[in-house]
Amino acid sequence: MTQIIPNAPTPTHLPKVSFSPSSPKSVTSTSVNIPTKTDHTKWVYSFSAGNADGTGTMKSLLGGKGAGLAAMSLLSLPVPPGFTLVTSLCNYFSLNNQTYPPNVKDQVAENIVSLENLTGRTFGNESKPLLLSVRSGAPISMPGMMDTVLNLGLNDKTVIGLAKETCNERFALDSYRRFIQMFGNVVMGIDMGLFEKVLHTKKERYGCKTDIDLTSEHLQAIIEEYKEIFKTQTGLDFIQDVDTQLWFAVNAVFKSWNNDRAITYRKLNNIPNDIGTAVTVQCMVFGNMGNTSATGVVFTRNPSDGTNEFYGEYLVNAQGEDVVAGIRTPKNIQLMQSEPEMGEMYLELTRFRTILEGHFKDVQDIEFTVQQGKLYILQTRNAKRSATAAVKIAVDMVAEEILTEQEALLRIDPHSVSQLLHPAIDPTGKKIVITKGLPASPGAASGMLCFSAADTDEMSQRGNVILCTEETSPEDVHGMHISKGILTKRGGMTSHAAVVARGMGTPAVTGAGNINIDLNKKQLTIIGNDELLLKEGDIITIDGSTGEVMNGLMKTIDPDLSLEFETLMQWADNTKKLDILTNAETPLDVQRAKRFGAKGVGLCRTEHMFFQSDRITIMREMILANNADNRRKALDKLIPFQREDFKQIFSIMNGYPVTIRFLDPPLHEFLPEKEEEIDQIVKSSGMDKDVIKKKLNGMKEANPMLGLRGCRVGIVYPEIYLMQSRASLEAAIQVAEESKIEVEVDLMIPFISTEEEIKIIKKQIDELAEKLLPKDKRLVKYRVGTMIELPRAALQAGAIAKHAQFFSFGTNDLTQTCFGLSRDDASSFIDHYENIGVIDKDPFVSLDTDGVGELIKIAVERGVKTRSDLKLCLCGEQGGDPESVKFCHDVGLHAVSCSPFLVPVARLAAAQAALFDQ
Amino acid sequence: MTQIIPNAPTPTHLPKVSFSPSSPKSVTSTSVNIPTKTDHTKWVYSFSAGNADGTGTMKSLLGGKGAGLAAMSLLSLPVPPGFTLVTSLCNYFSLNNQTYPPNVKDQVAENIVSLENLTGRTFGNESKPLLLSVRSGAPISMPGMMDTVLNLGLNDKTVIGLAKETCNERFALDSYRRFIQMFGNVVMGIDMGLFEKVLHTKKERYGCKTDIDLTSEHLQAIIEEYKEIFKTQTGLDFIQDVDTQLWFAVNAVFKSWNNDRAITYRKLNNIPNDIGTAVTVQCMVFGNMGNTSATGVVFTRNPSDGTNEFYGEYLVNAQGEDVVAGIRTPKNIQLMQSEPEMGEMYLELTRFRTILEGHFKDVQDIEFTVQQGKLYILQTRNAKRSATAAVKIAVDMVAEEILTEQEALLRIDPHSVSQLLHPAIDPTGKKIVITKGLPASPGAASGMLCFSAADTDEMSQRGNVILCTEETSPEDVHGMHISKGILTKRGGMTSHAAVVARGMGTPAVTGAGNINIDLNKKQLTIIGNDELLLKEGDIITIDGSTGEVMNGLMKTIDPDLSLEFETLMQWADNTKKLDILTNAETPLDVQRAKRFGAKGVGLCRTEHMFFQSDRITIMREMILANNADNRRKALDKLIPFQREDFKQIFSIMNGYPVTIRFLDPPLHEFLPEKEEEIDQIVKSSGMDKDVIKKKLNGMKEANPMLGLRGCRVGIVYPEIYLMQSRASLEAAIQVAEESKIEVEVDLMIPFISTEEEIKIIKKQIDELAEKLLPKDKRLVKYRVGTMIELPRAALQAGAIAKHAQFFSFGTNDLTQTCFGLSRDDASSFIDHYENIGVIDKDPFVSLDTDGVGELIKIAVERGVKTRSDLKLCLCGEQGGDPESVKFCHDVGLHAVSCSPFLVPVARLAAAQAALFDQ
Repeated sequence: MTQIIPNAPTPTHLPKVSFSPSSPKSVTSTSVNIPTKTDHTKWVYSFSAGNADGTGTMKSLLGGKGAGLAAMSLLSLPVPPGFTLVTSLCNYFSLNNQTYPPNVKDQVAENIVSLENLTGRTFGNESKPLLLSVRSGAPISMPGMMDTVLNLGLNDKTVIGLAKETCNERFALDSYRRFIQMFGNVVMGIDMGLFEKVLHTKKERYGCKTDIDLTSEHLQAIIEEYKEIFKTQTGLDFIQDVDTQLWFAVNAVFKSWNNDRAITYRKLNNIPNDIGTAVTVQCMVFGNMGNTSATGVVFTRNPSDGTNEFYGEYLVNAQGEDVVAGIRTPKNIQLMQSEPEMGEMYLELTRFRTILEGHFKDVQDIEFTVQQGKLYILQTRNAKRSATAAVKIAVDMVAEEILTEQEALLRIDPHSVSQLLHPAIDPTGKKIVITKGLPASPGAASGMLCFSAADTDEMSQRGNVILCTEETSPEDVHGMHISKGILTKRGGMTSHAAVVARGMGTPAVTGAGNINIDLNKKQLTIIGNDELLLKEGDIITIDGSTGEVMNGLMKTIDPDLSLEFETLMQWADNTKKLDILTNAETPLDVQRAKRFGAKGVGLCRTEHMFFQSDRITIMREMILANNADNRRKALDKLIPFQREDFKQIFSIMNGYPVTIRFLDPPLHEFLPEKEEEIDQIVKSSGMDKDVIKKKLNGMKEANPMLGLRGCRVGIVYPEIYLMQSRASLEAAIQVAEESKIEVEVDLMIPFISTEEEIKIIKKQIDELAEKLLPKDKRLVKYRVGTMIELPRAALQAGAIAKHAQFFSFGTNDLTQTCFGLSRDDASSFIDHYENIGVIDKDPFVSLDTDGVGELIKIAVERGVKTRSDLKLCLCGEQGGDPESVKFCHDVGLHAVSCSPFLVPVARLAAAQAALFDQ
Repeated sequence: MTQIIPNAPTPTHLPKVSFSPSSPKSVTSTSVNIPTKTDHTKWVYSFSAGNADGTGTMKSLLGGKGAGLAAMSLLSLPVPPGFTLVTSLCNYFSLNNQTYPPNVKDQVAENIVSLENLTGRTFGNESKPLLLSVRSGAPISMPGMMDTVLNLGLNDKTVIGLAKETCNERFALDSYRRFIQMFGNVVMGIDMGLFEKVLHTKKERYGCKTDIDLTSEHLQAIIEEYKEIFKTQTGLDFIQDVDTQLWFAVNAVFKSWNNDRAITYRKLNNIPNDIGTAVTVQCMVFGNMGNTSATGVVFTRNPSDGTNEFYGEYLVNAQGEDVVAGIRTPKNIQLMQSEPEMGEMYLELTRFRTILEGHFKDVQDIEFTVQQGKLYILQTRNAKRSATAAVKIAVDMVAEEILTEQEALLRIDPHSVSQLLHPAIDPTGKKIVITKGLPASPGAASGMLCFSAADTDEMSQRGNVILCTEETSPEDVHGMHISKGILTKRGGMTSHAAVVARGMGTPAVTGAGNINIDLNKKQLTIIGNDELLLKEGDIITIDGSTGEVMNGLMKTIDPDLSLEFETLMQWADNTKKLDILTNAETPLDVQRAKRFGAKGVGLCRTEHMFFQSDRITIMREMILANNADNRRKALDKLIPFQREDFKQIFSIMNGYPVTIRFLDPPLHEFLPEKEEEIDQIVKSSGMDKDVIKKKLNGMKEANPMLGLRGCRVGIVYPEIYLMQSRASLEAAIQVAEESKIEVEVDLMIPFISTEEEIKIIKKQIDELAEKLLPKDKRLVKYRVGTMIELPRAALQAGAIAKHAQFFSFGTNDLTQTCFGLSRDDASSFIDHYENIGVIDKDPFVSLDTDGVGELIKIAVERGVKTRSDLKLCLCGEQGGDPESVKFCHDVGLHAVSCSPFLVPVARLAAAQAALFDQ
């Protein structure tokens, strides 16, 4: 039996690595260093237990794997020695027709010699051959590239040496067989199936059930056939020269950086193309050298729920690929401590676990191999984990004094937090995905297909309903409330369906362009799938977190807000500078947002309040009225409803500020299209049907987004905004007097583009307030402000701030107008734009800092210059996007407002922004 | 016979008044000077022949009338002496509850004494009473205010004095009668009808045909009845105190500044509210004192055609109001020289004419009175004149060395120039205006009503057609070409109908909201006019210069470009810095624009080229194609058409640059809506009808203005822009080779919002050009540039200029997105906005310099920083608006591009901008 690797010294002194906070997604492109011919660049970094040229922080140069091995080496953990070819070499290789700088080969050769000296073995030597693994390792974990070649260094001669040395011919031949197969497939691109077929046929012929049953003779025969395949497929004899083997493998890794899968993955994940991959070459250790050998993967804590316990699996007498192949079932790592030959190894592992967590200050995902009673750590990396686990681990680590509270806050990806609030598809179930749309509102839901908002009421008597429409409009809001999930063919991440669904916390998939809805037959087909036909009442499941649409009922898992979550959010609140408010108008949503930590309502969209059936008729009468008097009569009927709505919100918010946005959409959005609805108006208003129809026709707009809406309606029909002013102020007075709480109400005027507009409306409101407000001004505090949602408003912010006491950036509209991009129509090409790199990300999801962001900066600067105590908020959909929250912090806003389910996301993002800022 | 006014000295020395250029419309608001109690402000300015406190340049303080009188006094012209109460007093009066500063009354009293001394008469004295006229006079001529009270100072006693003095009781009594009537009506607001009725009744009773037939007795009786009316209506006896008479009249003038008519007029004409009116009080002279007396109005040149000749009318033995009343027909002023008692007066008038033109350097509109052989000039002002006259007069005055070329250029209102190019309604005809819309495209046209673009072809066989629709769309362009005029119910000054019509030079009235079109019955009614019903084929006339719609056929006058016009335009070209290009795509338009002086095509909208019937079907096939291959096949069929179009344009422009804007509108604009059109596509493409219908449905957009259009189409379907690149470049090569001219072609990419978009498209074009262009690069010069028509493009101009070789500001879209205002929908409230002062002017007509203008400035600054030789142009509709042209000059653009008929407007405006800049 041979000890391939010398004993590693027991770690005594752990070098201290300082914690440097970095954005969870921050990957910056390294500038490519193109060497000259007389280059002295260090391209190769060695490591071995106790020594390393690099350190754990050099991820961008050494890749994740290389940096982890350097760190472990410096921690004197038992890593098989090796060396890493740096990422900048990958760029050089790509940019220089797949050639290397002159001195790279020398540096690699020197390192091979070092490994030979360390191990007492020789690369390519028949008696004690040095065997190597070659792996890729980019700065960011990235599937799609060439992965691993093991057992490199074996050839017809060294295999004999290995057999002799280990006194195990079968092991040596099996290793050779695996090497040819892996090298042939991974390096030379030979179809794996060709090798598998030979293996399969041979096993059948020899009557072997598993690979282990194959004898040396069997393996010998298989090797011969493998070599044949290699020859046929590549035109080459199987490569016997070990240096050539090595360089073929290294080349293959670097080439794979630019294969299609890798490129696509980088695009999808916003990873720059020029960060490159490193290659790590490491001495082989074997977990398949008998029952004192083993291989395994462990997480230092449970990555699923965060419990502080070893979590993982191992297999005795096996190589890593055996675990993947699934032929033998791996054992739970906990069992390892009670196995007589493994107990000691388990103890050592737990010791390393403490060292690694202490060093990396994070949960680790470790690969290890036991070779004949000796434990080696092959790899360590920060473990992927569920959102639940991430929160628990971060909070636990603070208790364990591994992390500070601030470090813990930076450990959680704010995006992931919303997962904690929504039900999720049970990952153990089998999914039949029938199509995919945009993940518009997170969470999973199952229910009966229903093709019309009007039918949801009746169908929901029979069970859960999924509303499926071309797109939704404000008239559908009632039906959307009733539905458990929403699926639309059209519309992007910020379409009406998406925005309303997120506000409600209802899962939604939008822009599922492949579905075809036949409203007459009440059925649905999928483009490209002729067999599937779903009818009204059929059960489907949607996953608003992934955009997947599934046939049938899927099991879901309910959310459970942990104590750790509350603790983390408490830390976030203590750290952040921004106030987090919510976009909500129903008592349910307002209540929910408050539970999730909102400190006020930043956007109460009053138009949503007019769609209930008892109000919409009055609203329509108002709109169709032919003079101001009749309009006022209808408005008088609406006042009690509106006042009652506001009273409820003020009561729930109990003193937190409430921002009421006055009527914003074009009036025609409230008008009926169906004949029977028109008849109803004829009946209730006594107006002539033809007159109504003409009026309906006359109110249509070519581009309603840019039409008679927002403050323009308030200016043309002043009585509408006066009604809303009165309802707001009266509600505030009543709640203040009844409940003895101080009510703070911000009246927000939408779609301002000129100073004169806000000046006129502010004057009207102030005059009304003068009449209504009690002498004691303390109980009700009101302000008048504007949405800044048009480029012109941003540019004119200095003049507008003369009259506006606060600004709230309506970044949905501001994005639409800055880009000239309707969010309802963007879905037809925005994906394509992202894929080909015209834009980095959907600007309706994450704020476009270059364009829209500059307008915000201009407005802030000019607004504050006019009015130093100007209140500044952002209330677009981007208010729940962490990067956008950071931007808001950076430009000095006071608050962001987002849909209730995103409030915790924004709280955490705001805390992180404050920490980055320190 | 009484000489009321002493002889004025003959003018010998004319004070030199320097010429100061000012924008034709520049009226700046004067800041209101609110005096304290111990105020020494001079509120009253005196004048008399040879002396004046003020000067002719003090219009804003003295009003137009007061300044003119001051100027004439200083020129020692024979003006009746008087004094002027300044405009700031009007503001004081308005802001201080209709009171005056303490010392005003004293200043007036002092002036009255001066007048008494000058004339040897006494105000209110029985023997030689001083009689006065009181007139309003704002800095800008402004109807709507109180105009004139004559004969003030008459009462029951002074009338006797006047009778004695003049030995003419009838004259004195008639003057008193007129005074009571005028004072009662104008100052006290008594209905004029009441007085007229008395006069009428009396004349009937006494059997008098005209006023002149009334005797002293008759007049005495009338005066008594007038006094009765005065008492009944006001509750006061007719005022006998002459000071009270005077202050009542002055108050009435100041009050009238804020009457409804005056306010409305100011709003409509963008006149600030705080400039105020002056009041001029002047000694009376009488043209009705026998046959050696007369009154008249003359223009120093013909205001209609500009001929250098006296033009006007006079009446012997009459007061000004008699001319207006129309009882006697005035005589042509030319006749005056041959009347024995008037010949000398005529010679004097012609002498004054030279003095006044020399002084004011402009044609004058003069009121004069001859009182018993003595000539008085009562008023002079710059004469209103037709556009034709303005041009001729300005050019003539240069020849006469009254003006320099530069002064002449500044004399013409560029807005008026387009009148010269279009036929106009004959002003002598009687107009039956049935409704009014927006003056969308100048010129007049008559023809048969036609309610569908599709029907124009057939109807035009029978005569001229006026197309009348709700609104127009690109599909209607063919029908619009055939029509002589266009009338739409919806759409603003920059709606599709307006833009296309202006481009074609076809008269158009848009947004005529009061018309109701019944497409089924093919008839038209007018809201509020139940009697009128117009059917298809009925003749109407539209005046696109005024927005008026008239019933029946109106005579029109054809344009005739004068030699003077060409001369003026030549001077303009020598003066201006901006290049004037045109927005045109048909050979007809391009040719016309060149004739009007365009130095290139600044915007060739290629989409307009696809609507002809032989092309639209191919276009539709292309759009409905289900893959790039089929798209390319259709595009291959389009290339020859497009190339031929471009060749024609290059040939006409003969070396001037041509800017080709690639496809801009959303593709669905090209798609059919009618069943039969869809059938045609089914037939020609072989596609399934259901598939086509689904595709049509899927392509609909909520806000097409912000959808998949412009470069987005070019990025998603690269083959479309490649076809257009190829057609442009091949056409350029062919024309260059065939005609041996150097072709300069600018390929313009619309709707850019990110750097990446232009980068991608530029690269594609450059690659294609590399293949196509001949080795000799001199003959064809091409550039790739962008429209800057989105706020984000303006902000990102620095990055975009890395790839764009020129910018053209698309201020239609830039205005839409900066304001969040769809030009198709704006008409529903933009008028209201203008009326209540929310905006000064329609930003689609005249550039919004505060908002859109700032974006342009930002883009210019950032673009030029990146690329110092960046070519800068503006090609929105505002390119033909003089104020906008001035802005373009001021911010350093190199060119503006406008519709052909506006090219001369822009040339002149550009010259004026250059002159203001000196």
